[in-house]
Amino acid sequence: MSLHTLFAKLDSSYSNMVEVRRYLHQHPELSFEERETPAFITDFYNELGVEVKSGVGGNGVVAKIVGGKPGKSIALRADFDALPIQDEKDVPYKSTIPNKMHACGHDGHTSSLLHLAKALHEMRDELAGTYIMIHQHAEEYAPGGAKPMIDAGCLDGVDLVFGTHLWATEPLGKIQYRVGPVMAAADRFEIKIQGTGGHGAQPHKTKDAIVVGAQLVTNLQQIVSRRVNPIDSAVVTVGSFVADNAFNVIADSAKLIGTVRTFNPEIRTLIEEEIERVVKGTCLAANCEYDYTYFRGYPAVVNHEDEMNHVIDQANLVPEVSMVEEIEPQMGGEDFAYYLEERKGAFFFTGALQDGVTSPYPHHHPKFDFNEKAMLVAAKTLGAAAINAQ
Amino acid sequence: MSLHTLFAKLDSSYSNMVEVRRYLHQHPELSFEERETPAFITDFYNELGVEVKSGVGGNGVVAKIVGGKPGKSIALRADFDALPIQDEKDVPYKSTIPNKMHACGHDGHTSSLLHLAKALHEMRDELAGTYIMIHQHAEEYAPGGAKPMIDAGCLDGVDLVFGTHLWATEPLGKIQYRVGPVMAAADRFEIKIQGTGGHGAQPHKTKDAIVVGAQLVTNLQQIVSRRVNPIDSAVVTVGSFVADNAFNVIADSAKLIGTVRTFNPEIRTLIEEEIERVVKGTCLAANCEYDYTYFRGYPAVVNHEDEMNHVIDQANLVPEVSMVEEIEPQMGGEDFAYYLEERKGAFFFTGALQDGVTSPYPHHHPKFDFNEKAMLVAAKTLGAAAINAQ
Amino acid sequence: MSLHTLFAKLDSSYSNMVEVRRYLHQHPELSFEERETPAFITDFYNELGVEVKSGVGGNGVVAKIVGGKPGKSIALRADFDALPIQDEKDVPYKSTIPNKMHACGHDGHTSSLLHLAKALHEMRDELAGTYIMIHQHAEEYAPGGAKPMIDAGCLDGVDLVFGTHLWATEPLGKIQYRVGPVMAAADRFEIKIQGTGGHGAQPHKTKDAIVVGAQLVTNLQQIVSRRVNPIDSAVVTVGSFVADNAFNVIADSAKLIGTVRTFNPEIRTLIEEEIERVVKGTCLAANCEYDYTYFRGYPAVVNHEDEMNHVIDQANLVPEVSMVEEIEPQMGGEDFAYYLEERKGAFFFTGALQDGVTSPYPHHHPKFDFNEKAMLVAAKTLGAAAINAQ
Amino acid sequence: MSLHTLFAKLDSSYSNMVEVRRYLHQHPELSFEERETPAFITDFYNELGVEVKSGVGGNGVVAKIVGGKPGKSIALRADFDALPIQDEKDVPYKSTIPNKMHACGHDGHTSSLLHLAKALHEMRDELAGTYIMIHQHAEEYAPGGAKPMIDAGCLDGVDLVFGTHLWATEPLGKIQYRVGPVMAAADRFEIKIQGTGGHGAQPHKTKDAIVVGAQLVTNLQQIVSRRVNPIDSAVVTVGSFVADNAFNVIADSAKLIGTVRTFNPEIRTLIEEEIERVVKGTCLAANCEYDYTYFRGYPAVVNHEDEMNHVIDQANLVPEVSMVEEIEPQMGGEDFAYYLEERKGAFFFTGALQDGVTSPYPHHHPKFDFNEKAMLVAAKTLGAAAINAQ
Repeated sequence: MSLHTLFAKLDSSYSNMVEVRRYLHQHPELSFEERETPAFITDFYNELGVEVKSGVGGNGVVAKIVGGKPGKSIALRADFDALPIQDEKDVPYKSTIPNKMHACGHDGHTSSLLHLAKALHEMRDELAGTYIMIHQHAEEYAPGGAKPMIDAGCLDGVDLVFGTHLWATEPLGKIQYRVGPVMAAADRFEIKIQGTGGHGAQPHKTKDAIVVGAQLVTNLQQIVSRRVNPIDSAVVTVGSFVADNAFNVIADSAKLIGTVRTFNPEIRTLIEEEIERVVKGTCLAANCEYDYTYFRGYPAVVNHEDEMNHVIDQANLVPEVSMVEEIEPQMGGEDFAYYLEERKGAFFFTGALQDGVTSPYPHHHPKFDFNEKAMLVAAKTLGAAAINAQ
Repeated sequence: MSLHTLFAKLDSSYSNMVEVRRYLHQHPELSFEERETPAFITDFYNELGVEVKSGVGGNGVVAKIVGGKPGKSIALRADFDALPIQDEKDVPYKSTIPNKMHACGHDGHTSSLLHLAKALHEMRDELAGTYIMIHQHAEEYAPGGAKPMIDAGCLDGVDLVFGTHLWATEPLGKIQYRVGPVMAAADRFEIKIQGTGGHGAQPHKTKDAIVVGAQLVTNLQQIVSRRVNPIDSAVVTVGSFVADNAFNVIADSAKLIGTVRTFNPEIRTLIEEEIERVVKGTCLAANCEYDYTYFRGYPAVVNHEDEMNHVIDQANLVPEVSMVEEIEPQMGGEDFAYYLEERKGAFFFTGALQDGVTSPYPHHHPKFDFNEKAMLVAAKTLGAAAINAQ
Repeated sequence: MSLHTLFAKLDSSYSNMVEVRRYLHQHPELSFEERETPAFITDFYNELGVEVKSGVGGNGVVAKIVGGKPGKSIALRADFDALPIQDEKDVPYKSTIPNKMHACGHDGHTSSLLHLAKALHEMRDELAGTYIMIHQHAEEYAPGGAKPMIDAGCLDGVDLVFGTHLWATEPLGKIQYRVGPVMAAADRFEIKIQGTGGHGAQPHKTKDAIVVGAQLVTNLQQIVSRRVNPIDSAVVTVGSFVADNAFNVIADSAKLIGTVRTFNPEIRTLIEEEIERVVKGTCLAANCEYDYTYFRGYPAVVNHEDEMNHVIDQANLVPEVSMVEEIEPQMGGEDFAYYLEERKGAFFFTGALQDGVTSPYPHHHPKFDFNEKAMLVAAKTLGAAAINAQ
Repeated sequence: MSLHTLFAKLDSSYSNMVEVRRYLHQHPELSFEERETPAFITDFYNELGVEVKSGVGGNGVVAKIVGGKPGKSIALRADFDALPIQDEKDVPYKSTIPNKMHACGHDGHTSSLLHLAKALHEMRDELAGTYIMIHQHAEEYAPGGAKPMIDAGCLDGVDLVFGTHLWATEPLGKIQYRVGPVMAAADRFEIKIQGTGGHGAQPHKTKDAIVVGAQLVTNLQQIVSRRVNPIDSAVVTVGSFVADNAFNVIADSAKLIGTVRTFNPEIRTLIEEEIERVVKGTCLAANCEYDYTYFRGYPAVVNHEDEMNHVIDQANLVPEVSMVEEIEPQMGGEDFAYYLEERKGAFFFTGALQDGVTSPYPHHHPKFDFNEKAMLVAAKTLGAAAINAQ
């Protein structure tokens, strides 16, 4: 009954959902620089008369809806930051800010959760339990907003937490899930090789930092190929190699930065240590110095079994959901991981492929866009998971 | 007799020589952008009443002094361009132009040759032969000024050509020479590796241009270690490696630029071809594309035996010269090479260490400076070589 | 009831089981060279009066026990070949043949299955269905005995097939299993790099096969690190690198051999192709020739879900079984894979750690041995799986 | 006059010279195992009545001819050891000993010097000075025979020392020389990489010695390409790489051996140290152990200027000498180096190409042979150098 009411309310708010999403899409803000977006969210709740708190753990916003009957406290999370990408789409709602763009769908997450909150608020008397809306800043850039929001108390009293990500390359109507590790720990490392530069014609008077960096990249390949159990998944990528000089010099230094992705915390620690071993040995062989820094990003997102199964059950009740699919773990990272380290819960993907598109632009692409109807699917699935968790 | 006169005239012009050098030092101009410097040189000759032609092969200036008796035509060359370096010296005559500096002594070459010309002009009636003063632009930046000046006829009718380079790390009074190859052919290459970029966590969907570039740098080391006759000298340096990305992507492309130094034309061609072979194979192994361009810079400077010995003999007649030393070939390049491909002649180094300095700044250093008395040594040695070559 | 009878019969045959195992242990025969072992097996069945056929697909032996009631045909498989290893154990039953040894427990497999067959034969009137005992030769050496035995008809009429491997590093009483891929496809490759040898002091006249081989090993690391989906498991190992020369020559050729392990057939094909791409490109870069051969070994062992679950259920009925554990896929290979490609069935591991041993020698070690009581656990589990599959 | 007599005597002994050479050719003995060869030489001198001493510094033989007049003491050296190569020539005088062969012409050196000694002995009354014939064992295998023979006193009282090497790939009648360094220091190194072996499918439990060895070979290329002055000549060759295992293991260890060639003693020391640095760093990066041993072989052969010029002058007096050619330094080694470290002198090459041969087999080849007339050229040139050095 409640579910029927909820779905009807969401259906009727769809045009507003689109409107809000497009407004946010035109006004993207970068991670940790969000000002107008949290103000917009706060205003939305204030207008509804919902209890809301801004400045949570930085730029985060938390709203609270108390049902008419006692019950569990269920948190739902949507992130709202954008990316430093120039919007190259040709649509009326394209970004109005140069070099900033909602290229990962967080605008959709936000509007979807706002309208789900509105529906829950309207139904509050007939609902059991409490509903905590976590509008999180800064998901795109480690150390992220989830950790400070948790530290600021956003999970206090919460029993369960759920979240979703719209996924523009999967068909509308598909829900993707995985019990256990579903998204990888995503770390960053920086290596500076300090050689001794000089004239390009006099190698014997130098220590060539480019040659050392090249060896290093080559040697780092062995961490995955030789030192990680083949059954475990791991990625070590050097994403940037910069030694930007004139053609006729020998490089004084080279800067390498990259990422490590793992699911297993032991493998994560192993790789952090093995990179240093390889850097140390490679530099020793060439008599060079180095700086090595390893920044731990988000841990792996690990879904809890019962809660994940609950979400699957609820997803199957959503009329628009035509397929619920188990997926392989994804090597990408998400700071939703922190919520699941603190509370039981689950995270899933909501298919958002645009109608008629066969080769969608990937997330983070300058022409990225998604099917706005997926906001409705997300709201219904999260909403069902929330009210039926009582 | 003539020599005695010449040396006396040069001695008496020394303070002017310093003055002119310092003026030029304060007004450096980059290769191919020289405007005021050639105008200054042209004015100098016009004031003397010496026949002068500007705009030769670009920004070059050529002056001609005809002796009172028949004889050979002897060309003397001085280059006059500066470098894109910020002058960091603390002297009254430091560069007045930001990021431009005479950091290689070409200002000294110019003033030295101007005052040698003045002396020869004054002595012209007693001299045999003709003296061609080649004031060359753009030595620092290939393809250089020598070639277009030759193409424009600066060597027409010339029998012999001589030149020198002030060398601030060798003691004043020392002349350095070598019969045969003395400076290397200095070439440039550019390699672009075109992979397929992507997300740092999804290597299997990409072709990682940094990994390929790293292999390439490593594999290029074998050209010198394995493919060049150990008796021959060669350098292959990758001076710049740029794949400047975020930490969590896989590089779509990487750009490598570098230099090749050789003395032997066959080795030069071998290396040009071997680099391409290594690039081609390394990219094939990774299924990547590439662009490879090899720019031939100046050829090797090869001194002619009789003419070099003539210079040595004359240098020994210069009172300030205390040491004439045979040196190993230098891996640096010089477009004086082109003159010696067209005419008999020789090129040598004139020691220009400053008094009391034990750790001189190298050429091209922001604090580079030289001993101005070396201009006198250069003028006397070149002058003696010229008038006694008749 | 049947199960109770079966277990009792097996318990009472245990001393014979040990005796037969030890006789076989003292008389090991290498893969494809088995003569006495299949004769011994055939004699065993002949003495029982069980229908038996030798020379099946080479040295294989197949026995058939027909139950008193109609039912399914269940095949049980035990392999019986030994390894080219010198037995270094100090036990009365050590190998009597130099450099040959049952170092993987196939002697135990054989004795276990023989005595299970004896029990089933004695119980045949009360049993439903038919029981096919597949005594397989040559498991240790690809292409193995399973394929030719199948080609010779050993699975004709068979409905289900089960097998086990004693595992001496896991505790007695533990059964290990996995639904889906449990053992990897195990392939072999050989690469010969043909350079041009010469004097160690004249690299420029040669093509150094060791340098090329070294690059190749380095470059092959990227197949796993960059080209295989991190979610998939794969191993590429160069196990042997031989260019055995005097110190003062340059190697004319180098021979590399290695192994590839995969679970996913697409990854298997990808790696076979990628190795060739890397070999081709690396040799092209050095202007060398190559021979590359890829030998497909056994495919992955993929357990069928229902049949695996059936085995687990039955294992739980065996009194000695104290733990049934799901395991990660193993990167080792097994030609049991071929049976599971043809018929439904399952393969599992039977713990066989010796009493009081905490650091057991691994399989294939010269001091390998196992707990003979595991033969009983294996026989009971296989027997239960067989008679309760009806 | 003396020269005319000497040349005539040598001409008339040519058939004996050939006979002795062919006898020696049929009876080769390896370095440090020479028994019959020194006995043959000693007998030859005893039969002539020349003072001779065997067992000098091992298997060396030294004969002494005292001229009728006072003068300098001149040493002439010929080596007499053979190589572990199977003679594959099809000639009547081929080696009679399996796997031993005079494949470098030392048989020719010996016969040439014996017959030169015979001629000098016959002419002794008219000669000034003393002539020391150094028949040296073990040139082919470091530490060689020269050093112990010198330690045993073979150069005591000697003023000058001369030697030559027949060179079968240069035309008969050509003498090749070089003032200064003419043959390289030839050293040997051995590196054992100790990893941790294991199963080919479990890299994470191992330290793969082949992967480390491969990196090492690759990294060693940089010593020549980056750390040695391009003007200097150096070779670092890994001649042997052995990790000989089954395909499905990971290598426990790998053995690399190789050679280093240099002319400059500072570069020699640099390379010895740099190899260790590279080995140390590369093994550290992979957490492996290593053993590194560097064996210094013969130093560079450095000809003294006056003595070399003296040999050239004398060579021009030999009727068969049609060309005297200056050559580049050779990267091969020779323990004649030790004599020239102790005494003034010179070493040269005597062309020995067979008539009608255009593609001669190189030295150390199983089909190597030389033009026996070159023995006469060698004897005349050495003889002239000796008697005219007075």
